Amino acid sequence: MIDVAALLGDAVSPEHVLIGDAIGDDYGHDEALTATPETPGFVVRPGSTGEVSALLQIANEHHIPVTARGSGTGLSGAAVPRAGGMVVSFERMNDILEIDTENHIAVVQPGVTLEQLDEVTAAYRLVYPVFPGEYSASLGGNVATNAGGMRAVKYGVTRHQVLGLEAVLASGDVIRTGGRFVKATTGYDLTQLIIGSEGTLALVTEAILKLYPRPEHQATVLAPFPVLEDVTRAVPAIVASGIGPLILEYIDTRTMSVITANVGLDLGVPPDIKERALAYLVVMMENAHADRLDEDVQALGEQLAGLGALDVYVLPAQAAAQLIEAREKVFWVAKANGADDIVDIVVPRSTIPDFMAKVAEIGQTHQSLIAGCGHAGDGNIHLSVFQPDPEQRYKVMRGLFETGMALGGAISGEHGVGKEKKRYYLELEDPTKVDLMRRIKAAFDPHGILNPGTLFD
Amino acid sequence: MIDVAALLGDAVSPEHVLIGDAIGDDYGHDEALTATPETPGFVVRPGSTGEVSALLQIANEHHIPVTARGSGTGLSGAAVPRAGGMVVSFERMNDILEIDTENHIAVVQPGVTLEQLDEVTAAYRLVYPVFPGEYSASLGGNVATNAGGMRAVKYGVTRHQVLGLEAVLASGDVIRTGGRFVKATTGYDLTQLIIGSEGTLALVTEAILKLYPRPEHQATVLAPFPVLEDVTRAVPAIVASGIGPLILEYIDTRTMSVITANVGLDLGVPPDIKERALAYLVVMMENAHADRLDEDVQALGEQLAGLGALDVYVLPAQAAAQLIEAREKVFWVAKANGADDIVDIVVPRSTIPDFMAKVAEIGQTHQSLIAGCGHAGDGNIHLSVFQPDPEQRYKVMRGLFETGMALGGAISGEHGVGKEKKRYYLELEDPTKVDLMRRIKAAFDPHGILNPGTLFD
Repeated sequence: MIDVAALLGDAVSPEHVLIGDAIGDDYGHDEALTATPETPGFVVRPGSTGEVSALLQIANEHHIPVTARGSGTGLSGAAVPRAGGMVVSFERMNDILEIDTENHIAVVQPGVTLEQLDEVTAAYRLVYPVFPGEYSASLGGNVATNAGGMRAVKYGVTRHQVLGLEAVLASGDVIRTGGRFVKATTGYDLTQLIIGSEGTLALVTEAILKLYPRPEHQATVLAPFPVLEDVTRAVPAIVASGIGPLILEYIDTRTMSVITANVGLDLGVPPDIKERALAYLVVMMENAHADRLDEDVQALGEQLAGLGALDVYVLPAQAAAQLIEAREKVFWVAKANGADDIVDIVVPRSTIPDFMAKVAEIGQTHQSLIAGCGHAGDGNIHLSVFQPDPEQRYKVMRGLFETGMALGGAISGEHGVGKEKKRYYLELEDPTKVDLMRRIKAAFDPHGILNPGTLFD
Repeated sequence: MIDVAALLGDAVSPEHVLIGDAIGDDYGHDEALTATPETPGFVVRPGSTGEVSALLQIANEHHIPVTARGSGTGLSGAAVPRAGGMVVSFERMNDILEIDTENHIAVVQPGVTLEQLDEVTAAYRLVYPVFPGEYSASLGGNVATNAGGMRAVKYGVTRHQVLGLEAVLASGDVIRTGGRFVKATTGYDLTQLIIGSEGTLALVTEAILKLYPRPEHQATVLAPFPVLEDVTRAVPAIVASGIGPLILEYIDTRTMSVITANVGLDLGVPPDIKERALAYLVVMMENAHADRLDEDVQALGEQLAGLGALDVYVLPAQAAAQLIEAREKVFWVAKANGADDIVDIVVPRSTIPDFMAKVAEIGQTHQSLIAGCGHAGDGNIHLSVFQPDPEQRYKVMRGLFETGMALGGAISGEHGVGKEKKRYYLELEDPTKVDLMRRIKAAFDPHGILNPGTLFD
């Protein structure tokens, strides 16, 4: 009988190998609403790439399932380990290794949080522009799920900001991909392949991230609309105007009233307008020049009025910040209100009205409450599904995914497939593509040790 | 003996299968300076995805090497076919299938040229922002090489603009990846994997491209510098200022005098400044507002003066257009002047001065003339190497690549590895990565029919 714990202790020093009761509950789950926690056999906390390599060599030799863990804020169960398997927790690899102001780059370890990075980059008047809404999330987790967030309409998502990686393969081999440049055509783009692979292809030990100048001035405009369709019809017009919005969110009235109540926020919308509103559009802009921002706000206000908004409000800075924060916390509000599952389907933004009409139908058919909000600018719809019966809920969820895909969309915009959306993914995705992905998986990880049960069975 | 031509004729109709003398010379080469043309056994011109699928089924069954061809403007020999193999020419699949103004998307077939797309998008006041400099290039070729160009400092490169693909696998299976959205986390990103794979993983039959509002106003600033190092030191400062330059090019004096003479262009730089200049920085900006552009030009001029520019010239629109065009034609000028090979190394932009110092040393050591220019904003250096002796030239080229990689760069920023840079690539790239890529290749193309000899042996 091999003493795996002893081997792992040789690799990372025994104090960083947890077994049995020493393993805290947190290591057994992420934030997915529906996932069943599992108890790993080992939690290891490597302090260096060399240690990660040594750990994977052991795992590969002894066919031990390995699940990487950043902050555990994922929403699809990708960080739920195999029972008895190994969790590689990156909590000790949390250094910002460099802020390179010449190349506008940050080099980070996977355990660095978004909050940590934002604080450091702010001092340089730079910004890492991906804000998925959970500031305690780790960059490693962001890379694994290709995290998005509200600012994708301007800056794209994680994969657009990661220029290179250091990653450890299942074999323990360490590779470096990409670099401090935005372009290269030298073989297959392993950086992009690893991003979004949810820990199934390699463990990321370092990421090279693109930074941007941090514009000093921000403004947020709120516009209630009587019809959801008008909100989404306004979106391409706003984008085409060239103002380059940072955020373009729609929030349905139910969700708006719950999230503002949650933080005690009064946006100053008069009751008569509130009553007639069916959805809100939130537009945030940023600019290095205050006067240009003012001019853009003015132009946007006029444009929104012409596009059917009931009124237009320029929010005071504090109320704007609170609203964005409240919007970011929508998952927690949904959870606190007893949501049974959540969805983050992405559809072509022009199809949002059609999609939402179908959502209403599906909710009615299966007597389920479905409320939500979404990134109108990029077509990523976040819905909370309230339906305690698992069979009914399956029908609702499957209906939502089928509808989204039929409109040219995809099951997940930013949360990932993980373990919790896998059933739907495998049922609905083209089997040719799934087979191809399985072969790619085998090319990276022939023994299937990396995050088994995620994406595929 | 199987009559392959007859089989192919069944797949695409006999008039679109060329054999023997009917095959024009052009099908045997691309624009790589060093590649030896080859004569394919068959040139097929499919008219639809279904026909491409049928062709690949035949090729796969009979193990016929397949090389895809767009406009044949590639610079690394990736479109040079196998002798006796099959060229799939996309000349008939050249339709812009849709300009979707709601989602800001173009759907194109692979044979569409950049010129064709630019003309059509202009009518909608939209733009596909990748300008690799050769307007006759096809979108299929751009996807295969992940084409870049001067505007990468603002918009990134092809991979940042391609949201989805239709592609035919070696088996003939047709897959659709991505869609009309900027974000998704539903399995491995096959779109990104196929982009830049130089025809070795799949044949692209349709691409979904991101479009942007087309700003109406442009301005171009020219600044001569007495030291190259000052040019590159100016770059991060300009980027950090937040003006968001569209183009940030440096051009050495030798290259500048040759390319301007080539088109008879006088930029109005007085002789005494010309004499003292060692390199030029060209900054192009665009804006939807003329007044903002003027303000930015003013601010940039002051900034450049402070950064060591000998003088600052705002070019008249026509001179600016001519300069950019002349810069885009630098390859043709180099070719006409007898360049023996070209390089498009990418390095972190902060290392350009170190890199160029080494380039001078390498040139001196091997008595070779090396002249160039580059995308200062993104670190992509274009060099022409004048050295007729193959052995000496190998040493020069290898020296350049080693130097670039030692500085954290990569062999090719946008031209690709193809067949012509393969030797250097396989000598210098981490063998662990090359092996992994070979396994990925095998996952897509088990019989190795797709563009054999490109990237790998």
